[in-house]
Amino acid sequence: MGYKVAVSVSSFAEADPAPLNILSQADIEVVPNPHSRRLTKAEIMLHLEGCDGLIAGLEPLDCEVLTSSANLKAIARVGIGIDNVDLEAAENLGIRVSNTPDGPTEAVAEMCLAAVLALSRKLVDFSATMHQGIWQKKMGNGLRGTACFFIGYGRIGKSFAELLRRLGATIYVYDPALIPADLKHGEQWCDMATGLGLADVVTLHASGNQVVLGTDQFDQLKPGAILLNSARGGLIDEPALMKALKNGTVDQAWIDTFEEEPYRGPLMHFSQVLLTPHVSTYTHQCRKSMEVAAVTNLLRDLDIKVGA
Amino acid sequence: MGYKVAVSVSSFAEADPAPLNILSQADIEVVPNPHSRRLTKAEIMLHLEGCDGLIAGLEPLDCEVLTSSANLKAIARVGIGIDNVDLEAAENLGIRVSNTPDGPTEAVAEMCLAAVLALSRKLVDFSATMHQGIWQKKMGNGLRGTACFFIGYGRIGKSFAELLRRLGATIYVYDPALIPADLKHGEQWCDMATGLGLADVVTLHASGNQVVLGTDQFDQLKPGAILLNSARGGLIDEPALMKALKNGTVDQAWIDTFEEEPYRGPLMHFSQVLLTPHVSTYTHQCRKSMEVAAVTNLLRDLDIKVGA
Repeated sequence: MGYKVAVSVSSFAEADPAPLNILSQADIEVVPNPHSRRLTKAEIMLHLEGCDGLIAGLEPLDCEVLTSSANLKAIARVGIGIDNVDLEAAENLGIRVSNTPDGPTEAVAEMCLAAVLALSRKLVDFSATMHQGIWQKKMGNGLRGTACFFIGYGRIGKSFAELLRRLGATIYVYDPALIPADLKHGEQWCDMATGLGLADVVTLHASGNQVVLGTDQFDQLKPGAILLNSARGGLIDEPALMKALKNGTVDQAWIDTFEEEPYRGPLMHFSQVLLTPHVSTYTHQCRKSMEVAAVTNLLRDLDIKVGA
Repeated sequence: MGYKVAVSVSSFAEADPAPLNILSQADIEVVPNPHSRRLTKAEIMLHLEGCDGLIAGLEPLDCEVLTSSANLKAIARVGIGIDNVDLEAAENLGIRVSNTPDGPTEAVAEMCLAAVLALSRKLVDFSATMHQGIWQKKMGNGLRGTACFFIGYGRIGKSFAELLRRLGATIYVYDPALIPADLKHGEQWCDMATGLGLADVVTLHASGNQVVLGTDQFDQLKPGAILLNSARGGLIDEPALMKALKNGTVDQAWIDTFEEEPYRGPLMHFSQVLLTPHVSTYTHQCRKSMEVAAVTNLLRDLDIKVGA
C-alpha cells in the first residue's frame, strides 16, 4: 500500500506486540519515536515528515504542526484526552482525529475494586503490623449488602458498579447527566444528600473540576464511610477531607488522582488513606487494548482494510 | 415451646442480631456465654445444664461433657471444624451435630480476590512510597488473560475461581480428588508441573498438612509468579519460599495462614510478601451468615419449625 505511519507514543507495543503486528500485516511502514520520551514541537514536526498517519501521545499537535505535515490524514490518540490536538485546524485540513474512550475502563474499574477490597479487608494495616511482628485480628467488611454511592456514572462508574453488584453490593447513583430510566441493573437513583446519608462506600466518577465533596457534603456523610477517588483530584476539597478523616466521618479513603501532581501534600500523613500515583490505567492489558484500538481507528480513518 | 439453648460462641450476634432474632421468634430461651471468651471444660459443663441445644464454638465437647448433659439433643457448630466434638459419644447419646461448611466460602474467596488485586496493582508498594513523598509510577497487571493455577479445588477454590473468571482470568486446576469432568466452567485440567510452568498466579486451596510447594516445585514455577496461601501454612516449605522470593521465581506473595500462629517468622522481613493474621473469614457478613446457618441447623435438629 505504501502507507507510512509515525508513532509518537514512547512505550508503544512494549506491553504487547499486537498493535505493531496489525500495522505490519497491513503493509504499513512504521516510524517509531526516536527519543523514547514525549516529543517536543520541533521533534514532532520532524517526526511527521512524509507520514500519512500518527499514533499519538500527548505531544503538541497545534495548527502549525498540522499545517506543516502535508501528507497527514489521520491522528489516532492512544488514550481518552485530545486536548493536545487543535481539532479545528485538523478539521480544516481534513485530518481525522480519534481517541480510545473505552480503553481504560476495565483497568480503572478493576483498580477501584482492588482499592475498595483492600480497604474493607484492612490489607495495608494488617501487613504493616504483621511486618512489625504484631499479630492482631480485626473484623473487616465483605461487600455483600454494602451500600455503594456513585457520584457520576459514566463508562468507568458503570463498569465498577457491575463488579460490585456481582459481589452483592447495592448501588446508589447520583449523576445529573442521567435520568432514572438510564439505570438498567437495579441501581437506586438518589440525590446527593440521600446518597451521602446511606453510603458505606462513596466513589467519585464525575468529570469537571468543580468541588463535589466539601465540608457541607462531608457533614451529610454517614460516619465511618470509605471514600474512593480515581476521577479528578479537584472534585474533593482536601482540607474538608482531612477534617472528615480526623473526626471519623471518613474511616478510610483511596486517592489516585490529585489537583497537583506529583502529589506531596498533607494526605501523606494520614495512615488510613491509601495513596497511589495516578496509576489506575497502568496495566499491561490496558496499554495493549488502547494501542490496538488506536491502530484500528487509524486504519479505518486511512480507509485501509485488513485481512481477508 | 419451652426449649432452652446455650450459646458458647463469645461474639454470637455481635455482627448482626439476625441469629438471635430467629431463636426468639421460635420462643427459645437463650443462655449466652457468661465469660465472653472460649469456655473451659468445667465452664461448658455448667453452661449446658438443662439445655436442649448448643450453639457451639471450639470449647472441648468430649465424652464426659456430653454424657453429663442430660437434656442435650443437638450441637450446632458456628464454623467448619468439629474436631472439638467427640462425634462417637454424640452419636451414642443421640445428640445431633452440625457445622456450617458454606459459611466462610464467600468471605475467603473475596479476601483472595482482594489480595491478588492488591499485589497485581502494587497497592501496598505505591502507598508506602507515596506516604514517603515519592511519586513513582509502575506498570501493574490486570487480571484479563492471567493464568491462575489452583492447587486444590473445593468450595473456596471454586468460588474464588468464579470471581477471577469474571475478570477475564484463565483457570488451571490440579486436584487429585477431582476428575476432569468435574470442571464445568471452562477450567483447564493439568498436572502440577504443567500448572506451575504456566502460572502467573498460584493459589493454594488444598487440605491436609503435607508440603505441596517445596524446592522442587518452586524450581518448576514460571519466574515472576504471584503466590497466594489462604489454606494452610504447612502446605508451603517456608525456607524454599524464601529462596524463591530471593531469586525472583516468586515475585510477590500473600500469606494468611501459618504453620505456627501467631506468626513472627522470617517472612516478616520480605517487603514483597503481603501478610495478614489468618483473617480471611473475618467479615461481619461471614459471621452473620455462619451464625444464621448454625441456628437454622439447630432448629432443624431439635425438630422445631419456625414461621407460618
